[in-house]
Amino acid sequence: VHIWLNGQLLPTAAARLDAADRGLLLGDGLFETMRVVEGRPPLLSRHLTRLNEGARVLGLPVPAVDMEAVLRQLLTANGLRQAAVRLTLTRGPGPRGLLPPAELAPTLLITASPLPPAPEPIRAVVATVTRRNELSPLSRIKALGYLDQILALREAQARGAEEALMLNTAGRLACGTTANLFLVHDAALLTPPLEEGALPGITRALVLELAPGLGIAACETPLEPAMLAHAQEAFLTSSLRFLTPLASIEDRPLPAPGKLARAVTAALRRAASP
Amino acid sequence: VHIWLNGQLLPTAAARLDAADRGLLLGDGLFETMRVVEGRPPLLSRHLTRLNEGARVLGLPVPAVDMEAVLRQLLTANGLRQAAVRLTLTRGPGPRGLLPPAELAPTLLITASPLPPAPEPIRAVVATVTRRNELSPLSRIKALGYLDQILALREAQARGAEEALMLNTAGRLACGTTANLFLVHDAALLTPPLEEGALPGITRALVLELAPGLGIAACETPLEPAMLAHAQEAFLTSSLRFLTPLASIEDRPLPAPGKLARAVTAALRRAASP
Repeated sequence: VHIWLNGQLLPTAAARLDAADRGLLLGDGLFETMRVVEGRPPLLSRHLTRLNEGARVLGLPVPAVDMEAVLRQLLTANGLRQAAVRLTLTRGPGPRGLLPPAELAPTLLITASPLPPAPEPIRAVVATVTRRNELSPLSRIKALGYLDQILALREAQARGAEEALMLNTAGRLACGTTANLFLVHDAALLTPPLEEGALPGITRALVLELAPGLGIAACETPLEPAMLAHAQEAFLTSSLRFLTPLASIEDRPLPAPGKLARAVTAALRRAASP
Repeated sequence: VHIWLNGQLLPTAAARLDAADRGLLLGDGLFETMRVVEGRPPLLSRHLTRLNEGARVLGLPVPAVDMEAVLRQLLTANGLRQAAVRLTLTRGPGPRGLLPPAELAPTLLITASPLPPAPEPIRAVVATVTRRNELSPLSRIKALGYLDQILALREAQARGAEEALMLNTAGRLACGTTANLFLVHDAALLTPPLEEGALPGITRALVLELAPGLGIAACETPLEPAMLAHAQEAFLTSSLRFLTPLASIEDRPLPAPGKLARAVTAALRRAASP
């Protein structure tokens, strides 16, 4: 397996990360994960736009890299045509403490893994162990820190489910652990607004863009947990898995995939083909 | 400079961190920073207790290591008698996604730096850019993710201050960016309770323990930002810097160090000598 690190394509075992990297020591960085189909990342420009927006929030310079060329090299070196690619950007090594060095040397790490299989419907519970902080700008960028989500997922597993839905600090639904949430109510798609602590998911945005063309109403609206009891369908969206139907929420069974989930999945496949 | 990584004392340049380490990719880990005086870490056992408590929250096994012996080796190799030591514990390398591998190989990294000089009084502002999430258990353990604090500190610097005070999601005072907060009101020390989003600081605990012996009342109580306008003194506490007086908060000058800050500093020095 090869990875790309700061301008070099290297065997994983030869890649050395600095023990003083602020990504490791302070979570000071960002990432993107994207889907590669037939050797091409169809939504690359959307991912790079989001990475740049996150870097702007953090005051983090983005190294100038011909990403298409780097991805071609990396995929070829790993013999992958369908892949999950991850870009990780950190503020690089620094001295002790929160203040970065005057001369920044950001770390850019790019890895490729085989694409996970199309997702099966999964069971979800609502996490009780932690909350999503919609009052932090980090809820709207893809920052490295996923420990709240890891805690929520551990809780879900302990309760016999495969996914956790996360509430924000106001007690409303925000998202899954690595995915956005959609509920179907009265044949319309509802998803929490970004201000509620939802990451601006690229598949989430695609669903909102594509729905009108499918004759489906879709809107961003705050979601109280009580609405889960009345949802006709529910699904998660993410860049790697597109759409994952929820087969149950808190033991209440749901059609999975439901009629709208099927229609949206087909439209996403068309929109995100190379 | 030498560091200690997973059982080996290595020159920094020879230390290799796995690019798949979950500490880097997901912020999945913890740390401690502690003060070494005359070659000894006087509060080591308190730091290890806090590390173990954090590891319990995360479900993270702590490698069995004779920490006193490791610190002796590391300090000798670096020719340090007074030092800032950092232990970083992560869940180690893992495959893509939030789920850890079945066989965990945690990463334990220990570094030593020269002890920073005794702190000068600093100016603080109240961060507006982000909030501390007291509804997450991560606010009460020393998890790796410090990006909210980095954003708050960047804001403070942009506003001409050296430190940011952080509000919790309820809008009450929680802490500084890497320190606990104490206000003096009516000659008593007040600090936010842990439930308000304060890290259980080791120096914070010492101050609460030592105050009665100094004839000073000290209590944990929720602090509204409006109380800043009436504080007679204010200071921060942390393991490396003990007590840092605040010379101003939002441009309101304060005595720095004030009378109580002086008394507490002297008591901390006595309590935390080797």
